[in-house]
Amino acid sequence: MKNLLVAFLVILFTLSCNPTTTQEDMTATAPTVRPDYVLVIHGGAGAMSRDKMSAEDEKAYRAGLQQALDAGKAILANGGTSMDAIEATIHILEDSPLFNAGRGSVLTNAGTIEMDASFMDGATLNAGAVAGIKTIRHPVSAARLVMTESPHVMLSGQGAEDYAVANGLEVKDTSYFHTDRRLRQLNRAKSKEETASLDWEESKYGTVGAVALDKHGNLAAATSTGGMTNKRYGRVGDVPIIGAGTYANNATCAVSCTGHGEYFIRNVVAHSISALMEYKGLSLAEAGDEIVMKKLVAQEGSGGLIAVDHQGNIAMPFNSAGMFRGFVKSDGETGVAIYRD
Amino acid sequence: MKNLLVAFLVILFTLSCNPTTTQEDMTATAPTVRPDYVLVIHGGAGAMSRDKMSAEDEKAYRAGLQQALDAGKAILANGGTSMDAIEATIHILEDSPLFNAGRGSVLTNAGTIEMDASFMDGATLNAGAVAGIKTIRHPVSAARLVMTESPHVMLSGQGAEDYAVANGLEVKDTSYFHTDRRLRQLNRAKSKEETASLDWEESKYGTVGAVALDKHGNLAAATSTGGMTNKRYGRVGDVPIIGAGTYANNATCAVSCTGHGEYFIRNVVAHSISALMEYKGLSLAEAGDEIVMKKLVAQEGSGGLIAVDHQGNIAMPFNSAGMFRGFVKSDGETGVAIYRD
Repeated sequence: MKNLLVAFLVILFTLSCNPTTTQEDMTATAPTVRPDYVLVIHGGAGAMSRDKMSAEDEKAYRAGLQQALDAGKAILANGGTSMDAIEATIHILEDSPLFNAGRGSVLTNAGTIEMDASFMDGATLNAGAVAGIKTIRHPVSAARLVMTESPHVMLSGQGAEDYAVANGLEVKDTSYFHTDRRLRQLNRAKSKEETASLDWEESKYGTVGAVALDKHGNLAAATSTGGMTNKRYGRVGDVPIIGAGTYANNATCAVSCTGHGEYFIRNVVAHSISALMEYKGLSLAEAGDEIVMKKLVAQEGSGGLIAVDHQGNIAMPFNSAGMFRGFVKSDGETGVAIYRD
Repeated sequence: MKNLLVAFLVILFTLSCNPTTTQEDMTATAPTVRPDYVLVIHGGAGAMSRDKMSAEDEKAYRAGLQQALDAGKAILANGGTSMDAIEATIHILEDSPLFNAGRGSVLTNAGTIEMDASFMDGATLNAGAVAGIKTIRHPVSAARLVMTESPHVMLSGQGAEDYAVANGLEVKDTSYFHTDRRLRQLNRAKSKEETASLDWEESKYGTVGAVALDKHGNLAAATSTGGMTNKRYGRVGDVPIIGAGTYANNATCAVSCTGHGEYFIRNVVAHSISALMEYKGLSLAEAGDEIVMKKLVAQEGSGGLIAVDHQGNIAMPFNSAGMFRGFVKSDGETGVAIYRD
């Protein structure tokens, strides 16, 4: 009788501790002490592999990512906000001709530059985005400007340009953004070579992004891109779409995506990560796995994302060969990587 | 001993049937037999009230909504698809000068027309959207065209226009879209009258939308708008943002929103309804209530939405004074309404 009661209590206890995906798990897997700050960045996902990339290129990309991380870290370590940190971080990536954002953006079918960016504040759910701007040095700052200074979330085309200029953002001549490398890529794309014969750069989905948690507990996310090589008809990808390419919410996480944008829009990827945490109680890692490694893979939607949750956990899932990425935490943990291994 | 075992089994059974918000609830509240078809439409939400609206206006709006419902119903009753039904329904609303979409769109600050639309297929998660088009008679068809014929989800500005024209969509001279009423509204908006002195039309968020379930069990959603009176800088609202203004997924529901677009983007409203059903097990009605009547109200985000779930349940929550709306089901249940009561 006594044994049966014990067995009964053991079973009850087991049931109440059933390790299914509940809200408890999220906090259980979180670090016991939230780090003072966390910064995670990406510089695009794609078919990068060791055999296709020169040692020189690899060194340059790693250095660019490190420089971007350092810029954001300096702000966070001084008690600055997650929003200031991700903006400064993305400025470095936009200024680098290596990444497809700002200077070094890919070219449209018409040989022009059309850049998109978005910004979201996890503390207030305020957001800003610009689509199709052509002369603003730092598109990410145009997105933040729309968020903080306008009553709108998204401005597009010449109107977005005019708004940024009227508010004093730095303008560059179109020649500033152009690089010979992107012109060669456009010409190769136009000559309709087989995808297989394109080098890793052509099959890379170029985007840059950053997410951060600051010591005030605030999350923020931003993404910036030059879009798709050879794009036509005013194509807009996921980058300026709040919920698709970018999302931040202090209750859950901050997310910035990179990949085949159409799949990220259809699957509302950035918001799905947040919704899986908020509504299903998944951890950030589980949510990232569910969307990037299962849902997108089933649809052959190539790409990845970076994310940090409100406890300072990070996730950097990608289903492509590689993703330029890096992170730094206040406890000193840091890293920069390109390939899967 | 035997009694204790029985008690133990009773407790186990109780635990396994714990009525928290699980997937079971959703199906439990669903009708036992899914209707053959369901169509739900809206023509915008806003400050419409009986004392502000003439009997003549009211009659005209009701007739317009009924005509749109009839067009979609004819297709669904003949076994047509949800996508064909919502497209035909929205054509009627776009052709009517009463609603802010297609003909009768509101004017930008420059006195021009800039229309947005989106379309989503719940069976495949394919989606299409156009932003800032100016001469296409039926923007909703441009969105569907982008979805079915292009590799992209979203096209904007002149590029979207060019794509629609190149694919044979009907073009109208800009004078076709203009109405004297919208010009008067623009002039009043520009003269910066107090909002309180504007009639209900100025404070209405004009949008049209339709969602449907067809006899094949497929859901679809579409939304179309002329945007905001007096808008500047290429402002894009929630309508062409998949996940914000429009979303459809056979696993959950089809949603079309209308309201202060910026709030609908920040809260990724249409996808949130689906996510609350899929990830939290809420019913469609509970999800609509959670987002429209709680989350948006807390942020003073005015508007509403229409939705139908995979079982044929409908929801039409709104937190504004009124919302032009209507629905029809294969079982004969139907209705058209404007005000809250």
